[in-house]
Amino acid sequence: MNKKLWGGRFEKDTDALVEEFTASIDFDKNLYKEDIMGSMAHARMLAKTGIISKEEAAQIIKGLLEIKAEIENGMFEYTVELEDIHMHIEKRLFEKIGTVAGKLHTARSRNDQVALDMHLYVKEKIDDVVKGIDILMGTLWELSLQHQNTVVPGYTHLQRAQPIFLSDYFKAYYHMLRRDKGRFLKAKENADLMPLGACALAGTTLPIDRVFVKEQLGFSKIYENTIDAVSDRDFIMEFLSASSIIMVHLSRLAEDLILWSTSEFNFIELDDAYSTGSSIMPQKKNPDVLELIRGKTGRVFGNLISVLTMMKGLPLSYNRDMQEDKEPLFDTVDTVLSCLSVLPGLLKTMKIKKENMKKAVEDSFIDATYYAEYLVKKGVPFRHAHEVVGKMVSYCIKKNKKLRDLNVLELKNFSSLFEEDVKDENKGFSIK
Amino acid sequence: MNKKLWGGRFEKDTDALVEEFTASIDFDKNLYKEDIMGSMAHARMLAKTGIISKEEAAQIIKGLLEIKAEIENGMFEYTVELEDIHMHIEKRLFEKIGTVAGKLHTARSRNDQVALDMHLYVKEKIDDVVKGIDILMGTLWELSLQHQNTVVPGYTHLQRAQPIFLSDYFKAYYHMLRRDKGRFLKAKENADLMPLGACALAGTTLPIDRVFVKEQLGFSKIYENTIDAVSDRDFIMEFLSASSIIMVHLSRLAEDLILWSTSEFNFIELDDAYSTGSSIMPQKKNPDVLELIRGKTGRVFGNLISVLTMMKGLPLSYNRDMQEDKEPLFDTVDTVLSCLSVLPGLLKTMKIKKENMKKAVEDSFIDATYYAEYLVKKGVPFRHAHEVVGKMVSYCIKKNKKLRDLNVLELKNFSSLFEEDVKDENKGFSIK
Amino acid sequence: MNKKLWGGRFEKDTDALVEEFTASIDFDKNLYKEDIMGSMAHARMLAKTGIISKEEAAQIIKGLLEIKAEIENGMFEYTVELEDIHMHIEKRLFEKIGTVAGKLHTARSRNDQVALDMHLYVKEKIDDVVKGIDILMGTLWELSLQHQNTVVPGYTHLQRAQPIFLSDYFKAYYHMLRRDKGRFLKAKENADLMPLGACALAGTTLPIDRVFVKEQLGFSKIYENTIDAVSDRDFIMEFLSASSIIMVHLSRLAEDLILWSTSEFNFIELDDAYSTGSSIMPQKKNPDVLELIRGKTGRVFGNLISVLTMMKGLPLSYNRDMQEDKEPLFDTVDTVLSCLSVLPGLLKTMKIKKENMKKAVEDSFIDATYYAEYLVKKGVPFRHAHEVVGKMVSYCIKKNKKLRDLNVLELKNFSSLFEEDVKDENKGFSIK
Amino acid sequence: MNKKLWGGRFEKDTDALVEEFTASIDFDKNLYKEDIMGSMAHARMLAKTGIISKEEAAQIIKGLLEIKAEIENGMFEYTVELEDIHMHIEKRLFEKIGTVAGKLHTARSRNDQVALDMHLYVKEKIDDVVKGIDILMGTLWELSLQHQNTVVPGYTHLQRAQPIFLSDYFKAYYHMLRRDKGRFLKAKENADLMPLGACALAGTTLPIDRVFVKEQLGFSKIYENTIDAVSDRDFIMEFLSASSIIMVHLSRLAEDLILWSTSEFNFIELDDAYSTGSSIMPQKKNPDVLELIRGKTGRVFGNLISVLTMMKGLPLSYNRDMQEDKEPLFDTVDTVLSCLSVLPGLLKTMKIKKENMKKAVEDSFIDATYYAEYLVKKGVPFRHAHEVVGKMVSYCIKKNKKLRDLNVLELKNFSSLFEEDVKDENKGFSIK
Repeated sequence: MNKKLWGGRFEKDTDALVEEFTASIDFDKNLYKEDIMGSMAHARMLAKTGIISKEEAAQIIKGLLEIKAEIENGMFEYTVELEDIHMHIEKRLFEKIGTVAGKLHTARSRNDQVALDMHLYVKEKIDDVVKGIDILMGTLWELSLQHQNTVVPGYTHLQRAQPIFLSDYFKAYYHMLRRDKGRFLKAKENADLMPLGACALAGTTLPIDRVFVKEQLGFSKIYENTIDAVSDRDFIMEFLSASSIIMVHLSRLAEDLILWSTSEFNFIELDDAYSTGSSIMPQKKNPDVLELIRGKTGRVFGNLISVLTMMKGLPLSYNRDMQEDKEPLFDTVDTVLSCLSVLPGLLKTMKIKKENMKKAVEDSFIDATYYAEYLVKKGVPFRHAHEVVGKMVSYCIKKNKKLRDLNVLELKNFSSLFEEDVKDENKGFSIK
Repeated sequence: MNKKLWGGRFEKDTDALVEEFTASIDFDKNLYKEDIMGSMAHARMLAKTGIISKEEAAQIIKGLLEIKAEIENGMFEYTVELEDIHMHIEKRLFEKIGTVAGKLHTARSRNDQVALDMHLYVKEKIDDVVKGIDILMGTLWELSLQHQNTVVPGYTHLQRAQPIFLSDYFKAYYHMLRRDKGRFLKAKENADLMPLGACALAGTTLPIDRVFVKEQLGFSKIYENTIDAVSDRDFIMEFLSASSIIMVHLSRLAEDLILWSTSEFNFIELDDAYSTGSSIMPQKKNPDVLELIRGKTGRVFGNLISVLTMMKGLPLSYNRDMQEDKEPLFDTVDTVLSCLSVLPGLLKTMKIKKENMKKAVEDSFIDATYYAEYLVKKGVPFRHAHEVVGKMVSYCIKKNKKLRDLNVLELKNFSSLFEEDVKDENKGFSIK
Repeated sequence: MNKKLWGGRFEKDTDALVEEFTASIDFDKNLYKEDIMGSMAHARMLAKTGIISKEEAAQIIKGLLEIKAEIENGMFEYTVELEDIHMHIEKRLFEKIGTVAGKLHTARSRNDQVALDMHLYVKEKIDDVVKGIDILMGTLWELSLQHQNTVVPGYTHLQRAQPIFLSDYFKAYYHMLRRDKGRFLKAKENADLMPLGACALAGTTLPIDRVFVKEQLGFSKIYENTIDAVSDRDFIMEFLSASSIIMVHLSRLAEDLILWSTSEFNFIELDDAYSTGSSIMPQKKNPDVLELIRGKTGRVFGNLISVLTMMKGLPLSYNRDMQEDKEPLFDTVDTVLSCLSVLPGLLKTMKIKKENMKKAVEDSFIDATYYAEYLVKKGVPFRHAHEVVGKMVSYCIKKNKKLRDLNVLELKNFSSLFEEDVKDENKGFSIK
Repeated sequence: MNKKLWGGRFEKDTDALVEEFTASIDFDKNLYKEDIMGSMAHARMLAKTGIISKEEAAQIIKGLLEIKAEIENGMFEYTVELEDIHMHIEKRLFEKIGTVAGKLHTARSRNDQVALDMHLYVKEKIDDVVKGIDILMGTLWELSLQHQNTVVPGYTHLQRAQPIFLSDYFKAYYHMLRRDKGRFLKAKENADLMPLGACALAGTTLPIDRVFVKEQLGFSKIYENTIDAVSDRDFIMEFLSASSIIMVHLSRLAEDLILWSTSEFNFIELDDAYSTGSSIMPQKKNPDVLELIRGKTGRVFGNLISVLTMMKGLPLSYNRDMQEDKEPLFDTVDTVLSCLSVLPGLLKTMKIKKENMKKAVEDSFIDATYYAEYLVKKGVPFRHAHEVVGKMVSYCIKKNKKLRDLNVLELKNFSSLFEEDVKDENKGFSIK
């Protein structure tokens, strides 16, 4: 156990169990890149404002770059005694450049430092998510172009409702994802706020230059209020909300495709490369990827609830509870990115069984709305037309017929308004 | 039990238990205004496009307006047999104007009708919420102006950290609410999409005019995809997410004020009009309003989880599960609006005990950072300065002194760099 | 606005908005019966211990019984000014019997009073839920007996896996419900604790008799610790957890039956009395009841999260946040009871299409495991047998055959161990 | 990429992205011990029933024990290509003992195998949790014995309500934990069900002996229904529910202690070994351990929601979504165990400032209920007594006095029933 960097007033060492309990190094090492990037900008600012010398800044930056290389080459040692990534890097910097390392933390607290790292991280990851969404949207659009004439039953209540074009089905998901993209970009706006300079919560008496740091790090804005800067996790909750909603969409797509790949629907067949088998049943071909996407939805909702609950009722400003924002965020980023990355290949390689889709359309009463609207066009109030066609359906079920099997004479038994032209049209395909 | 409007193909009546189980009239009667507004626009469109005659439209609209008046005057009868508000209104319209009422539902399904109602409702309620946020922001801003010189301990980990101005404390919440407002306005964009014309899911063969309806109802855009139009509840999930985040903020404010009104903090006293007493302890004055705001946070998170879970994995397009979007939404609207409406009065009437706040600042080591930064300005690396002041604090605790009680000679025992000027400054007040 | 019963030290009236915000009468009127029952037992105890006279107790009890009758006859007036059901009843008691009414609240606080009401309520409702579970278990058992020879595909990953008996399918749900019952009964144990006598949190100096009250009200145990007695909501969180788990089960049953009633599976047809139609598509018959059960699952999860979040991090003992336990509880009780009550009729009246189930079994490779186990019995390591049969399936798919279409000669191409007896057995039906 | 064990019917290899997406080895390697234990029992059973030979079983068991040693010595290599821990172990067994390894998976599917592992794991971890609860209960009990005469304000609404003994405060938590223990033990009952033999979902035609396996592995009962056996995750949801409720309790304890260690309450001081400092503010001593316990509550709720959501609406029987049960469970086990392990030391080492607690009791109107009950004993209806004392409190606030400062003459101004004996008693300490 070694003396903590904050240990001035403490007379006892931290209990080993406590060290392990409070340590975050296991997961916040993910932030090493953001942390070093932030520290370098901070050091430059300290030199620019004369708080440290240019030489000191140069030493610090050289040291930080070496540490970055060590981490990326797997040459860096982690230990729970050093709590978090910030302490790890600072300690290593001491080893490298001596006491001048102690000047880096001037006019900075871990509170604003970790906030900065998280902002940088979220901004970057939102870019990745948006890239993933774009690719998936592209795949859906292509499929949509390919299936402009592929007919498939449209379902409500999972009952065949009206025929639709498969093209429009894919476009429905395209539009959902477009809204998702908008939500992530909006979350990015709230992540795009620079917190450094807030220090613990109250800023500093030292003559810092926050605008310089902001520009160095590519932020659009600076937190106007320093208490807010260290207390705010809105951008994380917003990212998790947007992630929950996109997972709703992906879970619906997964559900549809799971259904469509059953023996019963038999509308698609997943490629072998996107399926798995059974350890006991030799005939099985399972849509595991889709099931996992559906299952991972719960995980993202859980992460959202985790952070919301953690933040609820916390007094201002920073509380250590807020360390618990990281794992749910990191896990959500990984989950959303992996779901987005696996879907385009799955969609492109799946075999679409157009004939089966067409057969399902024909083998149904899915054209009933067409007949009702036919009568409406002849002046029948819709409610009455609806009732007439309801009776036609009942009749057909008993006679084991479909609506299109009824000839005009039979149709006239239900309404005298039916004429030959009822047979002419391209029944029920109304979507342009 | 009476014959359902959709009952054409059915041979048996609905079971009474089932009627009650599936009925939504108890809560969707909230939507009567939106439903009638939507139906009127729809009727006008049907007339404009010649699907019904102008006279029929006039009859329908007259009937709808009468029904609206009946509802608002409490003259309207509800029954679970009629399931939902749509069926109630249509049934009543039949009673009033006869079979022409049956033409209103032409080129419309309950799927797009209920979606329309919900969009109209959410748009309107977001306006109310934003109004509530604006008023609360105004109150916080006023308080901020009044307390530019009021000093109060700033806390991290609920330990006194550094002195801040009360002004900045109120501004921290002001900034949170500003972000909340942005989130609600963004949610409104996704609510501002017109679904009518999607019918069940596949549009209609009838020559409708969606642009006309859109303009009548003040929407900015039309759903491009009809399947999406009836399947989409993004705008509700987004509203619930924004509501969850604002409740996090309000719960934090509530927590702070609950703490501040304890005997121990004693920084504020709530007005009698915003407190309640105890049924057994005559001396009690309880911050019930604030506790309820904090408690209601869970309720809003619960509503969010309720709708997210309900939507997860639903196959396209409409499923009856989606009826379960209404109660969580309505309850959230009521909760957020009531919390927003009760806070401004509470904040304005509470007594702020400046003297106690000042005393808490003085009776602490809250100026420690000032001493550390003093040394930094003299060239001491921050980490070393931090350690020096840590030892000063330890010394003071043993001697039962505060830092400001140490004279320059005593200070020099810790660092020879301390000079007379250490006593000059307005210690530790760094926020501008 | 009228003077509050706890208003002794207050100099201003409560703000009207605050009254409305803090009032619970809208929902806690549900507890009138429990409240009056508890007050009667309390009055009897006060008389028994001599704290009040027998005559006073008699007056109080008579008054309470009259109030109960008024409530049940719809003759009772509610107003938000009186906050909650306790104050309503006490106020009315004053009107009826004068100042002696003021003796009822002796040695009692609303904190222990409301806790008592909630315990009584939960105990009673658990009995109702258990009754509902028993009935549904009975229905499943009956169906199980009826379908001991009905063959249906068993699914994993929603792919046909192995043939099972429909009997065993129903029994699977029977066993889930049996565990649910156990969970509710366990929750009842923790509800079966008598809190009265804890008063605000610290008991009373008056010579009360808690054992007498316990026995009057049929409780098994008394809270040993008075702080715990007013702070504890475990029994509610436990009820909500048990409810969430049973909803998982009911949602799975709903999902299965929704799938089975699609045109594609076509294994069952719901009775008309348990289905609903479409307002636009005359042919539709929708499984709304099942969809709502599935959808209401989210609602119950939401209620659980609502109460968990509300309770998180509350300091001891009672806090007003805890008033927010009621609506999620009441809503969950209603939801679970209604789902349980609607399912037996739905299950009993649905038409089971045995022929379609059988056809689905035959029209598949669902007997593959049988062939693999056949080879295992001849000494082939399972992994090898699995591979052999995997190749047989591939072969059949290409030849458009089923496994049972292969004759022994063809089988021998895959393994020389196949003999005539492979054709003898009742393939793959292993469940007893 | 290597050929999968289930790959017989597949013609293409799995996509690398898919392998990574579906692999569970990163987290299910936690189950290696349970998996090997289960496989050994399974092998013994296969030999006992003659399905394999005794020699084969011996080879298999020897191989498994070697693999266990390799894993525990860090000599075992993991790769995502092998998906999960089951495949890793089986593959390694092939390398060690050749084709006889292929006999181990006879009469077993991964579905029942993973269910078995999870049951063994949960049973074992519940024992650990219960041990942790017992230790924490012991600590609370000791503290309770030590503080039978320590007076502290009891709070409702975080306002001083009535004086209590610190002893009773600790006992309140003792009782909460006792209920928690009961809930975990109940969850264990539902984990104590042996699933093996269910195979994929439908059992097997091979002559297995489930009772033998049950006894080998120390289970009390066998799943009666094989479909249920592979579909059931009740025991996990129940564990997560019990964990959520215990975290509510621990978060409340944490909140109390965080409040008590503020400068404002100043009732306790945490030991240096259980506190941490600030990187910027030298004077800070922060209750990080308690804050993290409070913060981790959200994490456990999140895990519960994650699994509930994942299970909602899944059709029978096994679906791959269910792989997502593991990480939330493992994380919850770690979280609950670590919180339980860190608290006893923190509680035992914290300094309890009795004098400050006593002063807080004296410096308040916390004895008001005593005066009210005094009047009640003299025959005043409680409601009236409450009002009288309310006025006494108002009077004292204006005069800057406490109730005990009022002499009997002053008291008589409020009620003539006050006599000298009002000064005699040990005011307001009613808890035995």
